Amino acid sequence: MTAGRIICFLTDYGQADEFVGIVHRVIAGIDPGLPVIDITHQIPRHDVRAGALTLWRSAPWLGPGVILGVVDPGVGTRRRSVAFEVADANTTFVGPDNGLLLPAATRLGPITIAVELGTGEFGPVSGATDPRSRTGATFAGRDIFAPAAARLAMGTPIRALGPLVDPATLMGEPVPRPEPAVREGKPAVLAEVLWIDQFGNLQLNAGPDDVTNLGDASPVQAAPPHAAPPHAVPPHAVAVHAAGRTREARIVDAYGDLAPGELGLVIDSYGLLSISLNSASAAAVLVGVAAGTPVWLTQGAAGMAGAARPT
Amino acid sequence: MTAGRIICFLTDYGQADEFVGIVHRVIAGIDPGLPVIDITHQIPRHDVRAGALTLWRSAPWLGPGVILGVVDPGVGTRRRSVAFEVADANTTFVGPDNGLLLPAATRLGPITIAVELGTGEFGPVSGATDPRSRTGATFAGRDIFAPAAARLAMGTPIRALGPLVDPATLMGEPVPRPEPAVREGKPAVLAEVLWIDQFGNLQLNAGPDDVTNLGDASPVQAAPPHAAPPHAVPPHAVAVHAAGRTREARIVDAYGDLAPGELGLVIDSYGLLSISLNSASAAAVLVGVAAGTPVWLTQGAAGMAGAARPT
Amino acid sequence: MTAGRIICFLTDYGQADEFVGIVHRVIAGIDPGLPVIDITHQIPRHDVRAGALTLWRSAPWLGPGVILGVVDPGVGTRRRSVAFEVADANTTFVGPDNGLLLPAATRLGPITIAVELGTGEFGPVSGATDPRSRTGATFAGRDIFAPAAARLAMGTPIRALGPLVDPATLMGEPVPRPEPAVREGKPAVLAEVLWIDQFGNLQLNAGPDDVTNLGDASPVQAAPPHAAPPHAVPPHAVAVHAAGRTREARIVDAYGDLAPGELGLVIDSYGLLSISLNSASAAAVLVGVAAGTPVWLTQGAAGMAGAARPT
Repeated sequence: MTAGRIICFLTDYGQADEFVGIVHRVIAGIDPGLPVIDITHQIPRHDVRAGALTLWRSAPWLGPGVILGVVDPGVGTRRRSVAFEVADANTTFVGPDNGLLLPAATRLGPITIAVELGTGEFGPVSGATDPRSRTGATFAGRDIFAPAAARLAMGTPIRALGPLVDPATLMGEPVPRPEPAVREGKPAVLAEVLWIDQFGNLQLNAGPDDVTNLGDASPVQAAPPHAAPPHAVPPHAVAVHAAGRTREARIVDAYGDLAPGELGLVIDSYGLLSISLNSASAAAVLVGVAAGTPVWLTQGAAGMAGAARPT
Repeated sequence: MTAGRIICFLTDYGQADEFVGIVHRVIAGIDPGLPVIDITHQIPRHDVRAGALTLWRSAPWLGPGVILGVVDPGVGTRRRSVAFEVADANTTFVGPDNGLLLPAATRLGPITIAVELGTGEFGPVSGATDPRSRTGATFAGRDIFAPAAARLAMGTPIRALGPLVDPATLMGEPVPRPEPAVREGKPAVLAEVLWIDQFGNLQLNAGPDDVTNLGDASPVQAAPPHAAPPHAVPPHAVAVHAAGRTREARIVDAYGDLAPGELGLVIDSYGLLSISLNSASAAAVLVGVAAGTPVWLTQGAAGMAGAARPT
Repeated sequence: MTAGRIICFLTDYGQADEFVGIVHRVIAGIDPGLPVIDITHQIPRHDVRAGALTLWRSAPWLGPGVILGVVDPGVGTRRRSVAFEVADANTTFVGPDNGLLLPAATRLGPITIAVELGTGEFGPVSGATDPRSRTGATFAGRDIFAPAAARLAMGTPIRALGPLVDPATLMGEPVPRPEPAVREGKPAVLAEVLWIDQFGNLQLNAGPDDVTNLGDASPVQAAPPHAAPPHAVPPHAVAVHAAGRTREARIVDAYGDLAPGELGLVIDSYGLLSISLNSASAAAVLVGVAAGTPVWLTQGAAGMAGAARPT
């Protein structure tokens, strides 16, 4: 068995109903030997952006194989059902064409081929053994996406699953990459808040590698024993400009490395920076900062983390 | 590997405790290659009817194979542990003899053979490797049902698992089928509310095929693009008689097809009709209608959906 | 395939995030054929004791194979990552060295070999295919524990995974065993409350076999039809001495065997005694009794269950 046969499965179905189980059963009915891994089924109902970000940050660990994602507020409308491949990552995506899958895919590489599912001779199927199960509305996860994912995992060529569509017409935006910028005459990185977690940490779209060239690479503390290998950026001070204020922060590897009240840019286990406070909500302090807010990062002043000034 | 080896598993155990995992481990200890698919473990505690209806509506997608269901308020009483087979569907059911399994089974076909589990030489087993694990009360899922399900999935003949019992003595009632009837002198279908979901939709035991002969098959709108193949019934108007009132409704494929305030009979992805309002609770409007309430359906007046009169 | 290849997996990750799925994917990426069984992922966040007790009571049903447990409030500190083996049970444990795993392991037998994970040449790995995934903090479940568990399940010798450590230096205490004692001049067993469940039952570290020699083995009622085989202890009366009071109780196989108000020692499906009331909270009655409270059990007076006196 090869890893290319693995299906990773994410939805907003929840686990109280039988929907997740039925999708698993449809796949197993096509090939009981296919590994199907539940990433999560607790994406908030119909929250395409939350599902897209979860897949985006997980993507480097999910391939090669098939990524089956269903968060689908537009089911029953004219949105397309699609499958598309990122050849560089040997990974195929299956789901609604609504922006859920595109950010994860484009993180892994260019989309090399895309097809529309569920049309014409490739229309919905039913795994049902009982003729009474003829349905009105299509349960796309069960009738379109699961069969497609199973066949892709078994090695069916993607072009056998439906008519080709132009990858450029797929819905969704890549997660924005941080950009080089200039702020108050100094080299800067223009980042963005991706989301705010339940603890009030503000996850940025930038990692430590993105801030290595701000002019201050001098370590301000020794790396703790659990730090990543030397390719990681040494901790240093960064100034965070957002929502009209500038705040000093320190890049650290763990929340616990922060002193009380000290603002940090914590490098999380996905390699992304979170604006954080130790045991407190950074979001409550950074008034006016929300998902999508632009954030400029410039060289900071060592030892000043937590200090703030209007900008 | 064949689909007949697949075990579908439903309980009210929840997932906070280790019970679901231990049942999986017992099965894997007998044959680590058996696919075991979790349908749901969040059936409300001891709610046999909720579990039975979930299995009943899922049943066409769960076979062939073994369906292991445990919602068991009577554990430790004289209720029997059973396994029984529906030969037409190549599907075997394992669980308590309390009505949980019978509706799903009889939907698939007549029960062809049944045995009692856990008696005499077929008594409880323990997968435990530690002699301290000798137990007082039997954990039936672990000690009786899981071993039986595993052996059935491996191909052990059902009669090797316990003494035969008469299928006619199994507990439970089939989910009632809608019946032809006459209402106010017109052809009618007598249906029943199966359950009311969290959104206030009233799921009936009738599908669109059950209302094709009410005298009005004329479409009142074109089928939307996501509609099922032509064997599905075209949308038409139906009068809903329940709890002393008659209301006009329209059969549609999706909640979104209903206008605000318009009462609908939405065909869900199981092929059943739900009395529904778009973004509102139909149950709140149909005062006096509960699970089990009889509902008569007769030909409706196109364009009148939502109108109501005493009946 | 053999049962020794099975990985049982327990964490406090919850299932709303993608962490559980990513650990599964890392294991499947190493060998897609390894069975990985979720015991639970809903251990309360950072509650090492709750996780340890869950593993301890489940342990007899989880082996042989690999038990992967991660409840890790000390991640990022100097606590060790370890793997160790109980040769008697053909079971290997993988996780943080913080007391989570030791109680379950020592229940199964002496720890025969232990190694430290994640150091030097055995350092963290990354299953990521994307160079952007270089991380700051290590996600130990993904980068250290999952790869080690997979390799152990595949048959890699434990000493290939890291430097040997002395099993005697592993953190954690075995769950205390009940001890013979004397109370008010009579033979007694000194037990301890392990935990109080959500229903107010007080689970002891003693089973019915531990109280067979208190001097009263005479049954006070016939065994109900669902009782375990004859090796189980016949029901009898026990006096419970805890927090300064003595209460009479009766050993029964099910909560339902207790009369209203009658105090029971219910033998649960793990073979442990719980101080319980039928449909009421025993913890609310036994004021001052908490997890860790010592409890002496002596011969009781048949027919007096529920009676109490200062002790």
